[in-house]
Amino acid sequence: MKLTILKDHLIESIGHVSKAISSRTTIPILTGIKIDANHHGVTLTASDTDISIQSFTTTENGNLRIIELFRPGSVVLPAKFFVEIIRKLPSQSIEIEVGQHFQTTIRSGSSEIQIMGLDPDEYPLLPQIEEDKMIRVPSDLLKMMIKQTSFAVSTNESTPILTGVLWHISGDKLKFIACDRHRLASREITIDNETAQNLQNIVISGRTLNELSKILPDQNSLIDIVISDNQVLFKIHSILFYSRILDGTYPDTSKLIPQSFQTEMVVPTKGLAEAIDRAYLLSREDKTNIVKMIMREDQTIEISSSSSELGKVTEQINLQSISGELLRISFNSKYMLDALKVLDSDFIHIGFTGAMQPIIIKPEDTSNILQLILPYRTTN
Amino acid sequence: MKLTILKDHLIESIGHVSKAISSRTTIPILTGIKIDANHHGVTLTASDTDISIQSFTTTENGNLRIIELFRPGSVVLPAKFFVEIIRKLPSQSIEIEVGQHFQTTIRSGSSEIQIMGLDPDEYPLLPQIEEDKMIRVPSDLLKMMIKQTSFAVSTNESTPILTGVLWHISGDKLKFIACDRHRLASREITIDNETAQNLQNIVISGRTLNELSKILPDQNSLIDIVISDNQVLFKIHSILFYSRILDGTYPDTSKLIPQSFQTEMVVPTKGLAEAIDRAYLLSREDKTNIVKMIMREDQTIEISSSSSELGKVTEQINLQSISGELLRISFNSKYMLDALKVLDSDFIHIGFTGAMQPIIIKPEDTSNILQLILPYRTTN
Repeated sequence: MKLTILKDHLIESIGHVSKAISSRTTIPILTGIKIDANHHGVTLTASDTDISIQSFTTTENGNLRIIELFRPGSVVLPAKFFVEIIRKLPSQSIEIEVGQHFQTTIRSGSSEIQIMGLDPDEYPLLPQIEEDKMIRVPSDLLKMMIKQTSFAVSTNESTPILTGVLWHISGDKLKFIACDRHRLASREITIDNETAQNLQNIVISGRTLNELSKILPDQNSLIDIVISDNQVLFKIHSILFYSRILDGTYPDTSKLIPQSFQTEMVVPTKGLAEAIDRAYLLSREDKTNIVKMIMREDQTIEISSSSSELGKVTEQINLQSISGELLRISFNSKYMLDALKVLDSDFIHIGFTGAMQPIIIKPEDTSNILQLILPYRTTN
Repeated sequence: MKLTILKDHLIESIGHVSKAISSRTTIPILTGIKIDANHHGVTLTASDTDISIQSFTTTENGNLRIIELFRPGSVVLPAKFFVEIIRKLPSQSIEIEVGQHFQTTIRSGSSEIQIMGLDPDEYPLLPQIEEDKMIRVPSDLLKMMIKQTSFAVSTNESTPILTGVLWHISGDKLKFIACDRHRLASREITIDNETAQNLQNIVISGRTLNELSKILPDQNSLIDIVISDNQVLFKIHSILFYSRILDGTYPDTSKLIPQSFQTEMVVPTKGLAEAIDRAYLLSREDKTNIVKMIMREDQTIEISSSSSELGKVTEQINLQSISGELLRISFNSKYMLDALKVLDSDFIHIGFTGAMQPIIIKPEDTSNILQLILPYRTTN
């Protein structure tokens, strides 16, 4: 392999695949980036086995010659050093030449770098995916769905299935659900779906979706998502992003969600979030994160937290409306803040079915987002 | 104590003193901020025993009423929680009221916070400093001197005196010297000095100077610096910044600096820094940081580093000039980069007196800055 490539384009491509590089891998060759060069262009591949990313740089873009190929070929280069050194090379033109035993020479301006490369044949093959089940989702909407749900996945590795977000595809509806036994977040959208029909148990790691989110453009351009038995492939322009589907059956969460409420209120989102944030500051010091909500006759609620060492925070909030029984209820302030942060609505609707029953939070104007928090049992 | 104060002014004052709050202190009351209120204004004090900072907020600024005092007094409040909650209060107007047993109530908008305060009489007194030895230095110049020297202090606590920067005052000259046995950085300026005359062994912790630097304004306004036997006081507008002077005698470093050179060269600063940075990337992987410089007949130098595992980086640099014997010399690339980063000059002068003698780096056009690096002994 021998070629020259424009630095900015190589750096951009490295930026895409670098999200799949793990420094903690037990498979030594996966600490590298694989480079394949042919007459179409240069493909970079990185993988940590959960995520694999391939990024393609085309030889020419209009009148701009990005790559000059002298000899096609492949090599695997140590990712960390390769990524850092490329960024710091002095000239826009970078020559990469692979010699005997994959010894690779990189030249740019007055710099010459020799790197011990690895045999590309030892690099694992990417999954082969049949393209018969595919959906299309606008990039910005997919990004929003990830943001509105992935924070609620479990971080407890003893139940791996809950570290993922459940994808539920039913005709033209795509629903994400994340749940960690204390809270649940869900978001539903309408999609273009001609081939995937009904798919019930696709679970993708929350961490993977957050990495995907960093690559997704903030535009409504459509992303093709191909779903196979154990992999999902996202096609993002010149990038292929492969994610493993988590093993196991996701629990049925539909029973958790109450169908009617004992108490309902409409609250200004920002005022509630700021008040809970102050109460959280204190509750955090006692490592409990517990805050208390007391509903009053005068259409107000009191939010409070207390710490035996530090003191007490008390907040008053005027409600837009309240109906039903006036409750006293305690909950995890951090979970409530996480939920409020992703609801893009000036007012929110909160439903209660009792002091020990799930709290349901929705934007006032739409029912396609739902956040659920289990309350805490407290002594008073 | 009872008063109201405008939020932005309180936050600004907290920002100044917070640099002296240590979470690791063994003296419990020092985890707090002391608040003193009288008819002139409100004074905040924080101290970690090395650094003590006092920030004063005046009652009125022109037509703006910043503080409304109802009852003078003092209290110590737990710093971490106080700092965070004040930033998040909903209204510009903040009421602080100290009740029995220093129980303090903070009110703002619909928030009410109760904090257990501590007895201000238990807070250590700040040092009493005689103002008979004082110098004046422009703020931006002092900041620059700190930047150009403090990085070179030792991080090894077994020789505490070397963790500080030596201040050497001789008539109208102020010189900073920092040295960690492997390198030395010095900077000299001309100052306004009527009272301090000659002071030889003032050593201030590098960490303290870096904290001071964050408070110093980027203007050439004059800072009064009062020097006593064991404390230095910096007067920065409404802020008093006290620093302890380190115990012990700073070693005489003047003998380290060669008076004549066997080899001298003038090099473009940016080209040299970028080349060494690339070589550093590789040398860092072997945890040695060693790079080699080879001087050639054709007015060029070669910078190189190698790692048995990764490979080799080789760089060519054209010199502006070179005279004397052509040497091969090895040094710590990180130290060289640190030195080059603070030299604000397009070309630098480097002087050598042999492969195992100190390397002296200066800007081409001035002699008031000097950086010294000891070379490494290598096998080839």
